[in-house]
Amino acid sequence: MTVSPFDHPLLSGLLGDEEAARHFSVEADIDAMLGFERALAEAEAECGVISEDAATAIGSALASFRLDTAKLRAGVARDGVVVPELVRQIQAAVGEPHNAVVHFGATSQDVIDSSLVLRLRGAVDHIGLLLSENIVRLANLEQEFGGRALMATTRMQPAIPMTVQDRIVSWRAPLERHQQRLKEQSSRLFVVQFGGAAGTLEKLGDKAPAVRAALAAKLGLGDAPQWQSQRDALAEFAGWLSLTTGSLGKFGQDIALMAQAGKDIKLSGGGGSSTMPHKQNPVKAEALTGLARFNATQLAGMHQALVHEQERSGAAWTLEWLVLPQMVVATAAALRQAAELAGQIESLGH
Amino acid sequence: MTVSPFDHPLLSGLLGDEEAARHFSVEADIDAMLGFERALAEAEAECGVISEDAATAIGSALASFRLDTAKLRAGVARDGVVVPELVRQIQAAVGEPHNAVVHFGATSQDVIDSSLVLRLRGAVDHIGLLLSENIVRLANLEQEFGGRALMATTRMQPAIPMTVQDRIVSWRAPLERHQQRLKEQSSRLFVVQFGGAAGTLEKLGDKAPAVRAALAAKLGLGDAPQWQSQRDALAEFAGWLSLTTGSLGKFGQDIALMAQAGKDIKLSGGGGSSTMPHKQNPVKAEALTGLARFNATQLAGMHQALVHEQERSGAAWTLEWLVLPQMVVATAAALRQAAELAGQIESLGH
Amino acid sequence: MTVSPFDHPLLSGLLGDEEAARHFSVEADIDAMLGFERALAEAEAECGVISEDAATAIGSALASFRLDTAKLRAGVARDGVVVPELVRQIQAAVGEPHNAVVHFGATSQDVIDSSLVLRLRGAVDHIGLLLSENIVRLANLEQEFGGRALMATTRMQPAIPMTVQDRIVSWRAPLERHQQRLKEQSSRLFVVQFGGAAGTLEKLGDKAPAVRAALAAKLGLGDAPQWQSQRDALAEFAGWLSLTTGSLGKFGQDIALMAQAGKDIKLSGGGGSSTMPHKQNPVKAEALTGLARFNATQLAGMHQALVHEQERSGAAWTLEWLVLPQMVVATAAALRQAAELAGQIESLGH
Amino acid sequence: MTVSPFDHPLLSGLLGDEEAARHFSVEADIDAMLGFERALAEAEAECGVISEDAATAIGSALASFRLDTAKLRAGVARDGVVVPELVRQIQAAVGEPHNAVVHFGATSQDVIDSSLVLRLRGAVDHIGLLLSENIVRLANLEQEFGGRALMATTRMQPAIPMTVQDRIVSWRAPLERHQQRLKEQSSRLFVVQFGGAAGTLEKLGDKAPAVRAALAAKLGLGDAPQWQSQRDALAEFAGWLSLTTGSLGKFGQDIALMAQAGKDIKLSGGGGSSTMPHKQNPVKAEALTGLARFNATQLAGMHQALVHEQERSGAAWTLEWLVLPQMVVATAAALRQAAELAGQIESLGH
Repeated sequence: MTVSPFDHPLLSGLLGDEEAARHFSVEADIDAMLGFERALAEAEAECGVISEDAATAIGSALASFRLDTAKLRAGVARDGVVVPELVRQIQAAVGEPHNAVVHFGATSQDVIDSSLVLRLRGAVDHIGLLLSENIVRLANLEQEFGGRALMATTRMQPAIPMTVQDRIVSWRAPLERHQQRLKEQSSRLFVVQFGGAAGTLEKLGDKAPAVRAALAAKLGLGDAPQWQSQRDALAEFAGWLSLTTGSLGKFGQDIALMAQAGKDIKLSGGGGSSTMPHKQNPVKAEALTGLARFNATQLAGMHQALVHEQERSGAAWTLEWLVLPQMVVATAAALRQAAELAGQIESLGH
Repeated sequence: MTVSPFDHPLLSGLLGDEEAARHFSVEADIDAMLGFERALAEAEAECGVISEDAATAIGSALASFRLDTAKLRAGVARDGVVVPELVRQIQAAVGEPHNAVVHFGATSQDVIDSSLVLRLRGAVDHIGLLLSENIVRLANLEQEFGGRALMATTRMQPAIPMTVQDRIVSWRAPLERHQQRLKEQSSRLFVVQFGGAAGTLEKLGDKAPAVRAALAAKLGLGDAPQWQSQRDALAEFAGWLSLTTGSLGKFGQDIALMAQAGKDIKLSGGGGSSTMPHKQNPVKAEALTGLARFNATQLAGMHQALVHEQERSGAAWTLEWLVLPQMVVATAAALRQAAELAGQIESLGH
Repeated sequence: MTVSPFDHPLLSGLLGDEEAARHFSVEADIDAMLGFERALAEAEAECGVISEDAATAIGSALASFRLDTAKLRAGVARDGVVVPELVRQIQAAVGEPHNAVVHFGATSQDVIDSSLVLRLRGAVDHIGLLLSENIVRLANLEQEFGGRALMATTRMQPAIPMTVQDRIVSWRAPLERHQQRLKEQSSRLFVVQFGGAAGTLEKLGDKAPAVRAALAAKLGLGDAPQWQSQRDALAEFAGWLSLTTGSLGKFGQDIALMAQAGKDIKLSGGGGSSTMPHKQNPVKAEALTGLARFNATQLAGMHQALVHEQERSGAAWTLEWLVLPQMVVATAAALRQAAELAGQIESLGH
Repeated sequence: MTVSPFDHPLLSGLLGDEEAARHFSVEADIDAMLGFERALAEAEAECGVISEDAATAIGSALASFRLDTAKLRAGVARDGVVVPELVRQIQAAVGEPHNAVVHFGATSQDVIDSSLVLRLRGAVDHIGLLLSENIVRLANLEQEFGGRALMATTRMQPAIPMTVQDRIVSWRAPLERHQQRLKEQSSRLFVVQFGGAAGTLEKLGDKAPAVRAALAAKLGLGDAPQWQSQRDALAEFAGWLSLTTGSLGKFGQDIALMAQAGKDIKLSGGGGSSTMPHKQNPVKAEALTGLARFNATQLAGMHQALVHEQERSGAAWTLEWLVLPQMVVATAAALRQAAELAGQIESLGH
C-alpha cells in the first residue's frame, strides 16, 4: 500500500529520501523501542529499582526477541498505540519471574516519544549533512559564476543589473542561519521522554531522577523532565523543517523562472516529456517548490497539535504521527534534490 | 518504507483503510494508466485516427505487458512523471510499426489525471457505502436511545435538559448533507482528462471531440473539455473529504467528552493502557478528532495548488500528489472507525 | 486600530473591498441583530407566544433604540458574546412589562448566527455581481484577442503553439463552475438559526416550528432545523470562497508570468517604484496570488472549526469569527482587482 | 470598517489587544517610515553621501510633515506599496534643491520592512512583559495550590492521582522555553533592511556598508546584509508566536475541561448567557483555544510566503502583510486573557 509519495516505489525517486525514510520504518521504530526497554532495565538495575538478574533476563530476551506483527497491528487498532501489545510480547519472552518488571514504571508514551526522538536524531544527522552539502554547492556556484552579470528582477519585472553572486547569496545565507537554528534547538529536542503513567514517575519514588538520568545517558539523549503534554520542541522542529524547505522552495522557484526566461541559466538533465522531445523540464526545481508548499501546509497541523489536553491527548498525538515523519522526509528529499539541482547548473548569468 | 501511517503495517490498523488505500497502490495506478492507453487506442481506431490493426496490436501488447519497475522509478526521478518511461516500455512491447501510434495525441497529464479520476471514483464508491453505513448506525442509536434524557452542554458547561436524539441529530444530519453534496459535485469530478501536449488536442484535428467522447465512454467517465490547469474539481472534492471528517471529528470529540464525564455513555472495547489496566481509552473517538484535524490541515495544500500556472505546473501538480490520496484514505479510515465506534456504544443518556 | 489590511485605511485600497467590508461593520451586525429581535417578536406574536402589545412595544423600542457601545464592549469581554448585554439594553428600552418577553425563547447564538447569515447573503449578492463581471470581461478579451497565437507553456518551458483563447478559457471556465456551485449551496447556507438555549426551542413547545418558519420568512431566509453545532454550511462556503480566489490566483500568476516574459501581454497602469521609474509592476496580478494563498491558508481554520463540541463550542465559534469575514472580503477584493486587471490588458498574444 | 475581530470595536475586548494593535496602526507605520527616512538622511550625511544641508532640510521637513492620506491610499492601490507616493509627498515638503536626495539609495521595501521590524520590536517588548506576567501568575498558583491532589487524566480518562503542581508545570515550563527561544531569535529578527532597488545598494558605492551601519545604529536595530527576499526570520518569529499561543491554548483547553468536570477548579467571573443565568462560561479559556488554532492556521501562510521569488515578490510580501500583524495581536490577546484567566482561578485540586 502506497498512499504517500514518500512511501511510493516510483514517486519516492523524486519526492522521497530513502535514508531519512529508513528512520520511520516499522523496523527502526521497533528497534528503538526495544532499545528503550533494554536501557530502562539497565538503568533501573543500576539504581536498585529492579534486580541485576531481572535486567539481565530482559536484556537477553530482547536480544533474541521475535515480534508477532499481526498481533501488534491488532493491538494498535484496539489500544491506539503499539506499546501495550509489544510489552505483552516482551513479557512473554522474558517469562517468569522477571516479566513483572519489564517496562517498569514506564508508560506507552515514554517508549513511543523516546523512540521518536532517537530516530529524529538519526534523521537530523543525515539532514545536517545534506544541508552542509547544499551550502558547499552553492558556494561553488558562487565561486564559479558569482562575478557574472544578472538582471535583478523585482515584482516580476526587470529592475537593475546586479551580479550572479547577489542572487546566490539569497539562496545560501538562509541555509547558514538554519544551521545555527538547528544547533540552538537541539538541546530542547533531543531529550528523553520518561514520566510513567501520568508524568510523575510515581512507581520510582525518590529514585526517579537517577533512573531518568541513567536512561537518558544510555540512550545518548539529554536528561529533562517529562514533556508528554508539552509538544513545543516538536512543533519548533517542524518549523525548522519548513523553514528549510521554504528556503529551498525559493531556490527552486528562482531556477524555474530562470529556466522559463531561458537566457540566464543553462541546466543539464531536465525532465523529458511524453510528447515534446525538445523540452527540458526543470523537474527538480518544481519539486522543491511543491515540497516547500507541502511542509508549509503540514506545519499548521503540528501547531494544532500543541493543544494537547490534560496529561495525554490521543487526538493531538495521533495528529503528530500523521504529519511529522512526512515533514522530515520531505525536507531530506528537498535537500537531496536541491543539491542535485545545483549540480545540474552548467551556467549562470552573462 | 513506511513514512505515513496510512501505509504503515502497524498504524494503518487504526489510521488507515485498506480498501481505500488499494486505489493508490502502484498497481492500481499502472492498471488505470494502461487502461487509458488501451481505451485511447480503441477510441482513435473507431474515429479513424489510427488503424484497427494498430489498436489491436496495442491492445494485445497491453494485455500481456510486463513493467520494468526499476526503470520507471528512475524515469520519475528524471522526468518528474512516470509516463514518458511507461510509454517507452509500451512502445517497445508493441514493436514496429504500431509503436508509433501508442499514446497518440495524448500527454503525460492526460494519463495521470484520468487514472486519478478513475481511482477516485472507485474510492468514492467505497466511501459512499461507509457514509451510508454511518447514517444507518446513528439512526439505530437514535431509535434505541433517542428518547432518553441528556444534559445539553454549551460552552463546556451544563445548560438545560434535552434528549439523546437532539445530540445524535447533530451527528447524523451533516452526513446526510454530505451525501447530497457528493451527488452535486460528481458530474464535475468524474470526467476524463484529455488535452494533448498543451490542452489543444492539436494532433487530432477535427476528430478531437469524437475521440475524447469515445475515450470517456470507454472509461466510464463523463466527457468534458480538458481541465489540466483548472484544478477546482479536485480542490472541491478535497473540501468534501474534509467536511466529512470534520463532522466525524465532532462526533468523536463529543464521544470522548462523554467518556471523560463518564455518566452519559457506556462504551465497550476501549483501548488498553500499558500501565493502567483499569482504563478504557476512547481510542477511536480520539482518532476521529485527529483525522479531522489532519484533513483540515491538508485542505489548505489542495487550495494552494489551485495557483496552477500556465498550461501545466509541475510544482502545483506535485503538491496535489502529496496531499490528495492521503485525504481520501483519512476519510475512509475515519468513516470506518466512526461506524465501529457507533457499534461500541452500549448506552447513551439516562 | 488597523491590524488587518482589510480594515486598513491605506492598504484596503489594494487588498480590501468597501462594499463587502460594510457587511462586517459593527453597525451592520447590530442592525441585523436588532432586525432578528424585531422579527422574532412579530413571529411570536403571530403564533400567539407573546401578545401583540408586547410585539408592538418591542418593535417601537427597537425603532428608536440607542446603543451603549462601551457597555457592549465590556459585555463581550465578559460574556464572550455581545448578545447578553445587547438584550439587557433592549429590555431596558422596552421597559415594564414587555421587557420580560424580549428575545423570548432565543439564545445568543440564534441572534449572532442569523445575523451572520443575513450579512453573508448581502455580501454574496455583491460577490455574485463581481463574479459575473469577471466572466464578461474575460469573454470580451476572448472575443478581442482569442484568435491570436500564444506559445503554450508547460512546466515552465515553452511547449507548442496554441491560441490566446485556449488560455483565457482556463481562466473563465472555473468561474462559471463557481457560479453553479454557489447556486447549489445557497439553499444550505441561507437558512435561519433558531434553537434556543440548547437547540430544542424548549420554551416554545409545539409552537416552535411555526415560530421558526415565521421568523425565517420575515428575515427572508430559508427555514431549517437549528445548526448551532453543525457548521458544515459555513465551511463549505469558505471552500467556495477559496475556490474562487484560487482560480483568480491562477489568472494573476499567469498574468505576472506573461508580464515578466514581456512579449505576450501589454498591460496599462502597472504600479510605480520608488526608485525605478521605468518599471510597470503587475501589482494587481501579484495581489491576486497573495489573496489566493491567504484564503487557501484560512480555509484550514474554518475546517478546524468543524470540530464544534457538544451543543455549543465557544472555542470553535470564536475561530470562525477570526477567519470567515476576512475570507469574504478577500474574495470580493480579488474579484474587484481581477476585473480591473482584465481591464488593464491592452493586448494578448501575437 | 471592522472585518477582523482584532480591529473590532466590540470583539477586540475579548480577542484583541490595544497595546499590540497600536503598533499596526497607520500612524505607527507612517511614524516608523518617516523615522527611517530621517535616519537615512542623517546616516548618509555622516558618511558624506549627501550634504549636511540636505540632511538638515529633510529632517526639518519631516518634523513638520503633514500627510495627504487620500493620495496615499490611491498610491497603494496603484503601486501596491505606500512608499512611492509617500516619498513624493516628502520630496514636495523638502522642496528644491534637497528633494533630489530624499530616500536616496533606498527602495520601498527598505522602508516598509525596516518599519515592520521596528514595530515588531515594540510589540515584542509588550509581549515579553505579558509572557513574564503569565509565568509569575502560574508560579503563584503553583505556590498556592501546587500541593493539592488532582486526578491525572490521560486520553480523556482518569488515570492516577498526582498533584496540582504536576499540571501547572505543564503550563508554565513551555512559557519559560519560549522566553529562551525569543532571546535566541532576536538577533536574527531585529535587524535593519537596507538594500536599495535590488539589494545591492548600488547608488552608495563603497560607502554602502558604513551608511547601513549608521542607519541601523540610529534606528536601534542590528546591522545585517539586506534580507529582502530572505524571509526566514519573519517566518521563524511567526512560529514563535504560534508556539506561544499553542501553549496557552493547552492551558485554556485544560481549564475548560476542568470547568466542565466541575470539581477540580473554582473560577470567578465566567461569562454570562442570554438565556441561562445559572451558567458561568469559561469564556477566556475558550478564547485561548480559539486563538491558538487561529495562529496555528496562519503560520502556514507565513511559511508559504518563504517562496519569495527573485529579488522581490509582491505576491509573497502581500501575504505576509495579511497574516503577520494579526498573529502578533492574537498572541498579545492570548497572553492578556491567559493572565486574567489565571487571576480568576480561585481554587485548584482537592
